[in-house]
Amino acid sequence: MPADRAPRGTREAPRRKDEVLAAATRVFHAKGYATASIQDVADELGILKGSLYYYIDSKEDLLFDIIDRVHRDTVERLEEWLEVEGDPLVQLRAYLEQQVQAYCRDVQQVGVFLNDFAHLSESRQATILAERDRFDAALRDLLRRGVESGSMAADVDPKLTAMAVFGMMNWISTWWREDGPSTPEQVARQFTDLVLAGVVGPASGSRSDLGRPAS
Amino acid sequence: MPADRAPRGTREAPRRKDEVLAAATRVFHAKGYATASIQDVADELGILKGSLYYYIDSKEDLLFDIIDRVHRDTVERLEEWLEVEGDPLVQLRAYLEQQVQAYCRDVQQVGVFLNDFAHLSESRQATILAERDRFDAALRDLLRRGVESGSMAADVDPKLTAMAVFGMMNWISTWWREDGPSTPEQVARQFTDLVLAGVVGPASGSRSDLGRPAS
Repeated sequence: MPADRAPRGTREAPRRKDEVLAAATRVFHAKGYATASIQDVADELGILKGSLYYYIDSKEDLLFDIIDRVHRDTVERLEEWLEVEGDPLVQLRAYLEQQVQAYCRDVQQVGVFLNDFAHLSESRQATILAERDRFDAALRDLLRRGVESGSMAADVDPKLTAMAVFGMMNWISTWWREDGPSTPEQVARQFTDLVLAGVVGPASGSRSDLGRPAS
Repeated sequence: MPADRAPRGTREAPRRKDEVLAAATRVFHAKGYATASIQDVADELGILKGSLYYYIDSKEDLLFDIIDRVHRDTVERLEEWLEVEGDPLVQLRAYLEQQVQAYCRDVQQVGVFLNDFAHLSESRQATILAERDRFDAALRDLLRRGVESGSMAADVDPKLTAMAVFGMMNWISTWWREDGPSTPEQVARQFTDLVLAGVVGPASGSRSDLGRPAS
């Protein structure tokens, strides 16, 4: 909340919906969606509650817009990354480095998604899940191409590996803090290096030989 | 819910607390902790609500016991794994293979932890977080020993790598299903191989050379 915020209800309406969604994200993230009210969001913006209805019809609209935006950003990032020149390993690095940094930057939005997705209506859950499925399919496809081209280990399972990658990325919202010791770039570098080396595997022998006691 | 369950309130009290916790896990996982009632748990067990109070004083006791048990199991598994003979890579493989399978087996308990941890009292949250911290510290220590002994890549950051590993494991509860296409053994193998190859890195050069376009 900015220190120079005007007293409740006296500021002009925010000019952009972005500002409304950023305030709603802060409120939902701090209080939880179920507990937070439209009034809380209006207070965070320093505007009258009635002014909020210029932008949305209900509290659930705010929740949907926050979650939808995170997912649409991810799809757009994916589309950029698919245009990167190079083999599947190059594409995977380019994508992961961007995506992990975005998950740090959007840590509150992703947190709202993880905590409050279940509060969306069924039809809106379905919209989000369709975006996610499109995205999952693209990552699996990239991993499959990596295996087929020989740049990734032959025993990489694209579906389970995609789930491992989503897990490590989504989990960021539970522990990463802007004022913590790790920058988005450091997290992106460590996660990307782990996954890249993980799917490439050792130069000789198979991945599952690693960490086996010598017989 | 077993098909041969007796009608509501007519069965004898369960003989073991395990049975009570298993029923509470199913109910909380299906309905969410906030919505579920002690009556729902009694119905799931086919006993009178009053009989449940032999085991617990409140609904929150059930939630705490479920989450505490998952964490205590994890600590015990960690202690077993630290006794495995061999270098840090061997210990990491032994641990991950067990732990990932346990996260599949206990998928509902972990799901209750992820969804409903915030419903615990502050002092009980602190108890769980202390168990988790002890566990985090041990995994970081293992990774540090791996780097120092030279069996893991020099640029592995133990703290961020531990977070990646926890993320992929905790996320299992959101997608893995007992009747789905992947067995716990398959998930454990893929995740373990990914992490082992990921921390070992390539035989020559550094992990961060992978996926860079040749200049």
